Amino acid sequence: MSLPATYLQMLSTVTGDGELRLELVEKAMPTPRSGQVVVRIEAAPINPSDHGVMFGWASIAEAKSSGTGPGTVLSAPVPPQGMRVMKARVDQPQPVGNEGAGTVVAAGDSDFAQSLLGRIVAAMGGGMYGQYRCVDATMCLPLHDDCTAKDGASSFVNPLTALSMLETMKMEGHKALVHTAAASNLGQMLNRVCQADGVELVNVVRKSEQEAILRELGAKYVVNSSSDTFMSDLTDAIHRTGATLAFDATGGGGLANSILSAMEAAAARTPGAYSVYGSIAHKQVYLYGGLDVSPTVLNRGYGMAWGVAGWLLPNFLAKAGGEVLARLCTRVADELKTTFASHYTDEVSLSETLQADVVQRYNAKTTGQKFLVCPQHQV
Amino acid sequence: MSLPATYLQMLSTVTGDGELRLELVEKAMPTPRSGQVVVRIEAAPINPSDHGVMFGWASIAEAKSSGTGPGTVLSAPVPPQGMRVMKARVDQPQPVGNEGAGTVVAAGDSDFAQSLLGRIVAAMGGGMYGQYRCVDATMCLPLHDDCTAKDGASSFVNPLTALSMLETMKMEGHKALVHTAAASNLGQMLNRVCQADGVELVNVVRKSEQEAILRELGAKYVVNSSSDTFMSDLTDAIHRTGATLAFDATGGGGLANSILSAMEAAAARTPGAYSVYGSIAHKQVYLYGGLDVSPTVLNRGYGMAWGVAGWLLPNFLAKAGGEVLARLCTRVADELKTTFASHYTDEVSLSETLQADVVQRYNAKTTGQKFLVCPQHQV
Repeated sequence: MSLPATYLQMLSTVTGDGELRLELVEKAMPTPRSGQVVVRIEAAPINPSDHGVMFGWASIAEAKSSGTGPGTVLSAPVPPQGMRVMKARVDQPQPVGNEGAGTVVAAGDSDFAQSLLGRIVAAMGGGMYGQYRCVDATMCLPLHDDCTAKDGASSFVNPLTALSMLETMKMEGHKALVHTAAASNLGQMLNRVCQADGVELVNVVRKSEQEAILRELGAKYVVNSSSDTFMSDLTDAIHRTGATLAFDATGGGGLANSILSAMEAAAARTPGAYSVYGSIAHKQVYLYGGLDVSPTVLNRGYGMAWGVAGWLLPNFLAKAGGEVLARLCTRVADELKTTFASHYTDEVSLSETLQADVVQRYNAKTTGQKFLVCPQHQV
Repeated sequence: MSLPATYLQMLSTVTGDGELRLELVEKAMPTPRSGQVVVRIEAAPINPSDHGVMFGWASIAEAKSSGTGPGTVLSAPVPPQGMRVMKARVDQPQPVGNEGAGTVVAAGDSDFAQSLLGRIVAAMGGGMYGQYRCVDATMCLPLHDDCTAKDGASSFVNPLTALSMLETMKMEGHKALVHTAAASNLGQMLNRVCQADGVELVNVVRKSEQEAILRELGAKYVVNSSSDTFMSDLTDAIHRTGATLAFDATGGGGLANSILSAMEAAAARTPGAYSVYGSIAHKQVYLYGGLDVSPTVLNRGYGMAWGVAGWLLPNFLAKAGGEVLARLCTRVADELKTTFASHYTDEVSLSETLQADVVQRYNAKTTGQKFLVCPQHQV
């Protein structure tokens, strides 16, 4: 198989003069070392977790694009506070795209790398918004024969996040979960996993259409944060399920506080669950996203046994170790077209991904909308 | 030794109609069971951690006292939000006073209980603001012969809190500490322990007098949150010490956020400590007090590897287990008159503790001021 001498890769740079630039850069085709393979990336999703590296703290509402084709450049101003936070990445171009899938077109001489030649694999590790990507063969998940690259594009971030939420629950001794922004692609997947595993899940949404999506999926507990009865609905659901762990995709505002307050109120209904310092069981909310960029506000009216923390998939996987990761990946490959199926509303080329009007659409993070980058499409 | 038939104990009750009552109640003298002892309580400190059980969410600024001697009653209104939070304790009188010391005046028939007869012991477990207290002998710490009850009154809460902060640091893999309200009795003790153990400690205070107290004690890192250069001073100190763990006594407002932001800024100065998701090392702030009752506000500008959580000594000790507790208690008894010495500005009787003007004084939590309840003083 003959490969081109160069390929295009998307890079994000914060410049010293307060601008974010997202552009395509021509790179030399790498030669894989012994344990490496070169994957021709055919499909890579735009996940909310990609936005951080792509856009950082730039003001995306003010983004503009210039140029055409491979010369398309997206630029946006970065406010002073954002520059302070992103100090460590100034003038250091960052490859973007956490995960993707495609065909192995070159391999180093190790047996395992050679065994992947011609196979369709999913891969993670950044830099997937590009035409090719050289990765360690051990970072690849070979797909079953009936799966396409599009089927496998989202094999890691959402599936491993959903499964890792359940692993976290077990490792930290909780027995049920609360999840916010629960009608998201990830939220729907989490519902399928929890139903399969017999784990009770309290879904928090903010619109009645989102309630309907989850009820349709068979979700037992769905509460709407826009409803006048939200706090009592949430307390009831937490009381019934015994959930003392939540994963919050919104991050900012008062939602984490509301969840901890509802957990406290649920404990107050339970004989023996309460001491003079408040409820006894540890109540934890992990913020794994930042849909709401406003500050997180905690009134602390829930005793002393509580925590709020950031949660990031790679950090969890590093702590859980290789055996857990291998077990989770095997399950993803086996259930890729059922439990872990993803659906895309839009397919875009590398240059379309940089057009300001397209950026505004995927940056809106509308429920049900999901973009797939197709690096082999005409740039 | 002949004991009176009854004794006075202080109880705190939240009534269904929104009032907090703190009063002395006559109780029958208990007969100790096999492994128990009766301690004549001679000295018991008023710690910030006692205020929660004593006053709950009542509006103490509006507290009034009535009656005299054993009939003194303190009452204060409880606002509606406080009633919701304290629902589980309505109409259930709570004994108050976490720790104290005194003479063992009666003992059950177990060898260990008998061995304590006549000894001066420190004890914890609540209900210490009373003339007598029956406790399990295993909950008593016999003092060395040269120690009085006043020397031993504060053997648990502050000493075990200071030592447990260091244990937490070791258990969770941190190497240095940040502490706020650092000129407090506890803060001074923590400085002595850290100096003895060679652990770097960043002291955060809000007044120059408090800075002076700590410098006098030999503290190396003292930063003043009222200074214009607070954030850069704090970042410098965190960068030098490598502290990624903080214990915050204020709880509310922006201090926890400032500490996490300074930890992030310190990491950004350190090669290899930073990824596109922010700093890599986990940064943790434990809120162990609530000197600032306003909400905790977190702007989350410090990546994903961070946590904020409540921290309560009994919960930590339960998790750490009996061997750790025994090790820490032995150290406290050995160093009671040096590292763990406490000083009191006021000694009050049980009834004086209930007088509104006295309550306003100890509720002010002024640095350097510390009250000792002496239940054997004339009520």
